[in-house]
Amino acid sequence: MDSKKILSTYRKQGARIETAARVRLRTKADVSLWYTPGVGVASSHLAAHPEDARHMSVKKNSVAIISDGSAVLGLGNIGPYGALPVMEGKALLFKQLANIDAWPLVLATQDPEEIVRIVKALAPSFGGINLEDIAAPQCFAIEQALIKELGIPVMHDDQHGTAIVVLAGLINAAKVAKKQLARLRVVISGAGAAGTAVARLLHAAGVKDLVLVDRSGIIGPARTDLSPVKQELLAFTNPRKLAGALSEAMQEADAFVGVSGKGVLTVEQVKTMAPRAIVFALANPEPEILPEEARKAGAAVIATGRSDFPNQINNALVFPGIFRGALDRGVVAITEASKLRAAKALAALVANPVATKIIPDVLDKRVVPAVAKAVR
Amino acid sequence: MDSKKILSTYRKQGARIETAARVRLRTKADVSLWYTPGVGVASSHLAAHPEDARHMSVKKNSVAIISDGSAVLGLGNIGPYGALPVMEGKALLFKQLANIDAWPLVLATQDPEEIVRIVKALAPSFGGINLEDIAAPQCFAIEQALIKELGIPVMHDDQHGTAIVVLAGLINAAKVAKKQLARLRVVISGAGAAGTAVARLLHAAGVKDLVLVDRSGIIGPARTDLSPVKQELLAFTNPRKLAGALSEAMQEADAFVGVSGKGVLTVEQVKTMAPRAIVFALANPEPEILPEEARKAGAAVIATGRSDFPNQINNALVFPGIFRGALDRGVVAITEASKLRAAKALAALVANPVATKIIPDVLDKRVVPAVAKAVR
Repeated sequence: MDSKKILSTYRKQGARIETAARVRLRTKADVSLWYTPGVGVASSHLAAHPEDARHMSVKKNSVAIISDGSAVLGLGNIGPYGALPVMEGKALLFKQLANIDAWPLVLATQDPEEIVRIVKALAPSFGGINLEDIAAPQCFAIEQALIKELGIPVMHDDQHGTAIVVLAGLINAAKVAKKQLARLRVVISGAGAAGTAVARLLHAAGVKDLVLVDRSGIIGPARTDLSPVKQELLAFTNPRKLAGALSEAMQEADAFVGVSGKGVLTVEQVKTMAPRAIVFALANPEPEILPEEARKAGAAVIATGRSDFPNQINNALVFPGIFRGALDRGVVAITEASKLRAAKALAALVANPVATKIIPDVLDKRVVPAVAKAVR
Repeated sequence: MDSKKILSTYRKQGARIETAARVRLRTKADVSLWYTPGVGVASSHLAAHPEDARHMSVKKNSVAIISDGSAVLGLGNIGPYGALPVMEGKALLFKQLANIDAWPLVLATQDPEEIVRIVKALAPSFGGINLEDIAAPQCFAIEQALIKELGIPVMHDDQHGTAIVVLAGLINAAKVAKKQLARLRVVISGAGAAGTAVARLLHAAGVKDLVLVDRSGIIGPARTDLSPVKQELLAFTNPRKLAGALSEAMQEADAFVGVSGKGVLTVEQVKTMAPRAIVFALANPEPEILPEEARKAGAAVIATGRSDFPNQINNALVFPGIFRGALDRGVVAITEASKLRAAKALAALVANPVATKIIPDVLDKRVVPAVAKAVR
């Protein structure tokens, strides 16, 4: 479908999600019970026992999808209206895949402290907070502050959803390429929210040779321009002290994980990778390299973030299940152990991974229960 | 139903509203269209043309129900969790009565400037803002600031919804009592959000003898403790320069409009009213006087805010239609002319008003279209 057709389809559709009544008001008695005067009883009760909101209100099953539009897909800082269709799409996935009542809340501010204040103020109505498409480095401080201050699960999906699904894909891609996960040389293109979290989770999973590359080149000790967050990465990445551009990092790499932008990876660079190379070109909507080009350049296992190519490494495989598990079990902290379990559970759903099938389909009904079970 | 039974029914129910998908994802092609990569086209478009969000996103049909829990029903300042059941009930009514997608957003702050900042930040996701159960006088400044700064309809329902439905009821109650609306002596008990707005709209409808009474007594020129908002009321209320307590105001009054609290009006006070007295005891969930007591004291027309007595004068007759009309016609300002038209339209739905039937039923399907049509 070309862009014009897609746009006119969205116009015809209008909203993609709506609200629905879970009780039907047929009689005055129904109105008395579910509105006034009956609702006064529930109000008085929750004023005295706010912890019961989790059992007798929308808080039971709701997630706020919060974005400031500062890093939308691979499109960049396109603001709240640009972010709105993505958040609405996520709400649609939350509902269809995990029966979670999520509402898109795009914010007309990009001030990190104000975002924290707003989300804290909004928290009473929601059972969980899905932060989304908020740029690094602000996303780190925002998520940390909210995790610390709110008693409900908070997850910046660009970080942790991406990290979990990348690890799941890499577990199976390594099998297909007949390589050991821990011994892979992995290049991560993009050191923002996603790249940083991918690096941390791959490290936790035992991967020892991780090299991150940002717009200015390889993140290594020679760099003098690194932010505090990127400096922290030096403690467990780039063991061979590489420096230079992406091309340097790609030589003899076993795997490329792109969470950067359109066209970042060239055919020439793929050609310099180790045999049976793994290429995850996850930038959305336009990947770092098109699958057919990566294949021509010799890559053995190729994945993108899109649903119109094989091997869709997409957060949609993760966030519905993570929040389903957290809401069902009253889990507040999404721990590293839960993330590792979720990645392994996702990978295990593909019994016999092959080059064109390393990850379950987004619409596979086994995905949400498997991921949800990992959250403890 | 007693309180215990109501509470256990709410517990069993859990949430009363949920989200629902308006498109179904059955195939990978569906995911490609409605999520990634297709959604990128919509995002790029809305980033460049935010005005189109009104046509191709949840903004088309959504209303945020915002409360800080500072004045919930007649229960007072019981905070966001106390407010949540009411806001959720309103969301239920919005959906069932007007097919509007409203989400309850109760805020963990009561700072007026912060509330304005938060609602401004949230506005991109919504087609309208229903402010609710926010105490006076903060509610006035909050509503004014948001009306001024947002390009979507903003209405504090406690003010304008109440005013419209009270005027509608009074139009028909006057007919039943065979009195002229403009000549009624009306006592308004409560000079907060609702009382102030009721006074203003009744004045606009031609009522000349209005007396407001707050906790300290009749609002008149002798009072030295009046807030600026209450001082403004002196310009068009209390023409006979009354002073003293509610009892003073009630003598020879034709109509009592209670938007105050439980048990404020006594049998003795009703007995001192003019013949064929009108008593609207609208405090929720517990009225200013119970209907049977008002009847025994001689009142001719009696209404409450509750659905378990006859004549439910409740905002639920107004807010769904007001926002339905505003969303459908792209109306941003809910003008005084629209409010007067809405009240008259509501009243006109009762062809032959009698003492026990002065206002349509909340579940009457003619209500929302009639009110919506009044919004221009």
